[in-house]
Amino acid sequence: MTHPVVDPVALTQALIRCPSVTPAEGGALALLDEVLSAAGFTVHRVTFSAPGTPDVQNLYARFGSDAPHLVFAGHTDVVPPGEIARWKHDPFGGVIDDGEVHGRGACDMKGGVACSVAAAIEFIAENPGFPGSIGFLITGDEEGPAINGTVKLLEWAHARGERFDHCILGEPTNPLALGDMIKIGRRGSLTGRLVVHGQQGHVAYPHLADNPIPGMLRLLGALIDEPLDAGTAHFAPSNLEVTTVDVGNPASNVIPAEARATFNIRFNDIWTPESLEAELRRRVGAAAGGALRYDLRFEPTNATAFVTEPGPFVAMTAAAIEAATGRRPTLSTTGGTSDARFIKDYCPVLEFGLVGQTMHQVDERAAVADIRRLTAIYKHVLASYFAPDGTSVAQP
Amino acid sequence: MTHPVVDPVALTQALIRCPSVTPAEGGALALLDEVLSAAGFTVHRVTFSAPGTPDVQNLYARFGSDAPHLVFAGHTDVVPPGEIARWKHDPFGGVIDDGEVHGRGACDMKGGVACSVAAAIEFIAENPGFPGSIGFLITGDEEGPAINGTVKLLEWAHARGERFDHCILGEPTNPLALGDMIKIGRRGSLTGRLVVHGQQGHVAYPHLADNPIPGMLRLLGALIDEPLDAGTAHFAPSNLEVTTVDVGNPASNVIPAEARATFNIRFNDIWTPESLEAELRRRVGAAAGGALRYDLRFEPTNATAFVTEPGPFVAMTAAAIEAATGRRPTLSTTGGTSDARFIKDYCPVLEFGLVGQTMHQVDERAAVADIRRLTAIYKHVLASYFAPDGTSVAQP
Ligand SMILES: [Zn+2]
Ligand SMILES: [Zn+2]
Repeated sequence: MTHPVVDPVALTQALIRCPSVTPAEGGALALLDEVLSAAGFTVHRVTFSAPGTPDVQNLYARFGSDAPHLVFAGHTDVVPPGEIARWKHDPFGGVIDDGEVHGRGACDMKGGVACSVAAAIEFIAENPGFPGSIGFLITGDEEGPAINGTVKLLEWAHARGERFDHCILGEPTNPLALGDMIKIGRRGSLTGRLVVHGQQGHVAYPHLADNPIPGMLRLLGALIDEPLDAGTAHFAPSNLEVTTVDVGNPASNVIPAEARATFNIRFNDIWTPESLEAELRRRVGAAAGGALRYDLRFEPTNATAFVTEPGPFVAMTAAAIEAATGRRPTLSTTGGTSDARFIKDYCPVLEFGLVGQTMHQVDERAAVADIRRLTAIYKHVLASYFAPDGTSVAQP
Repeated sequence: MTHPVVDPVALTQALIRCPSVTPAEGGALALLDEVLSAAGFTVHRVTFSAPGTPDVQNLYARFGSDAPHLVFAGHTDVVPPGEIARWKHDPFGGVIDDGEVHGRGACDMKGGVACSVAAAIEFIAENPGFPGSIGFLITGDEEGPAINGTVKLLEWAHARGERFDHCILGEPTNPLALGDMIKIGRRGSLTGRLVVHGQQGHVAYPHLADNPIPGMLRLLGALIDEPLDAGTAHFAPSNLEVTTVDVGNPASNVIPAEARATFNIRFNDIWTPESLEAELRRRVGAAAGGALRYDLRFEPTNATAFVTEPGPFVAMTAAAIEAATGRRPTLSTTGGTSDARFIKDYCPVLEFGLVGQTMHQVDERAAVADIRRLTAIYKHVLASYFAPDGTSVAQP
């Protein structure tokens, strides 16, 4: 029996050659549409819009109609290449040099998408009657504002009756070597903006002015002096960084009218955005003591801390990783946010992909050997997940 | 016998009509040259230059060649009028409205210059054989960089053999009413610039970055938390104001590389610029504790704290003020710096002029009655200073 196969390395190269800097589709989703359709997937291309943001194309594909439904998530959009002259190879060339595929998106995450597509097509070809469905949620708006991407694609699919049992997001989770790290959750992110109001005046007449800077120092001190928590089972302590303080007063003989600061907290599952905001307002209010005029605003956030509690699904993935790499992956919640924060509202999600060391940098690249091993890992997960002997985590 | 008289109100109006925004001469010094020459003064017009600054004209005049020599100091340059539409009258019109002369420089300090010129000319006319000399040191660079002004004019005069026994600087020293305040000294001014260096990075990976903002908060806290001193006999406590803090980081997910701050100290006669700088370096160094990378620089300053100890010269002036106004002036060292900080190196100097309430503001103005009373006060001082009965403070 013959079956169609897709080479994950060639697919990675072909995707890199699509110039899909957010929000451009660049041909990447069209290519996946063609490959998945040829393999028997039902493919939907969906464009979402919102005022003030560019339209973005997304792709949803499914093979099979039964549960359980294991879905791979990912993005084909990439960050800009920056100064192209600094690259060893064309960032949109997909050149293989010394065993590595070079180009923007090689590891973040056209390579990961290619591995999951290749693994799924090969698994289906070898297991035509497997019990369940395999899906793909691929967005073109992960590196941008993330407004017309995964959030809306999930809502759209859910409204059509699509249900997901588990999800693997193929972001480059490994810091240094394939097999280092599975992400089983993400910290939340909250951004606050603080303005302290004073009264402008001349430094020689401070009693006629009211310098807002000492008050700003006091309020920022109240934000950073005490740790927010000591961490939890799966999370490091929450961390607050003051990212900017700005007065913008060029005159050294003038007391300014106003001081502004921005801070960002990466918080663990002790907090919700609401409880964290309340704690920070309490700290600032106590430090101000009724004597300062200030505004404290928080930006709306959709980044809540979450964890996919380790269980059979995570264990199965870890076992597949160890079989292919000889490494037992760390179960981590470190790093920035990802689209997993949206997916977790629909089904358990874990993240595992290529090595992220060069992501967002000049000479982004991925090892050919890693692409082949990641494909094998995903295929191994599919085999375990849909195992006919009843060992699957997803069997009813 | 007839003698030439100069009306101080008309002279104030005429000076206001000279558009002498620093560094423009605007005709103001030419006018004084004409008036003083006509009254028998020897007048010198001197232009000074320095790389990177505009050329500035200055005027030195003297009547008589004997000691004692009482010199009036002042400036004819003015700050810009700002938005002219907001003025009730043309800022260069010298309009009299409801008993006040309106215009830029009315109180700061074309009015004060006019009063001293009118008083001197009238005194000389009435006392042709008075024992001593009367001088004028008038600069066009007080409101600007003050590089091509009083400092160089004093050096120039000293090099020519000119010696001064006492000086009255006619800045608008009175906060609310004529007679409120004589300035017998000025605080010093020192400006420092602090840079704290860190390491840029992503807020999600703080262990790979080094946020300079907490260090900046600590160092600024060390500068402001403890008072510098408790004041002295003639001075209020020294005061430090942080005038700006700037990071300029627009990205709330980025830890910045560097934070910058500027601060200014108005300091009393406990300190020299050198001793104050040493104390501030000690504070910052102790707070940094060897753990922070920072730069602390101080701008060169020529503003040292000084006081003209109250004695017969101050008492004579206070008596003249009280005779004309019924008020006993406060002897103060408050407020900003002035050219008195340069003059004090050559002779004792005090400052007394018009009411400064509208100085540097829209609708700057001076009461006609105050101009006449200030002229009388200056003339009274001249009479006391050169008293033939030996009561003069300046007699050998
Ligand atoms: Zn990514
Ligand atoms: Zn002035």
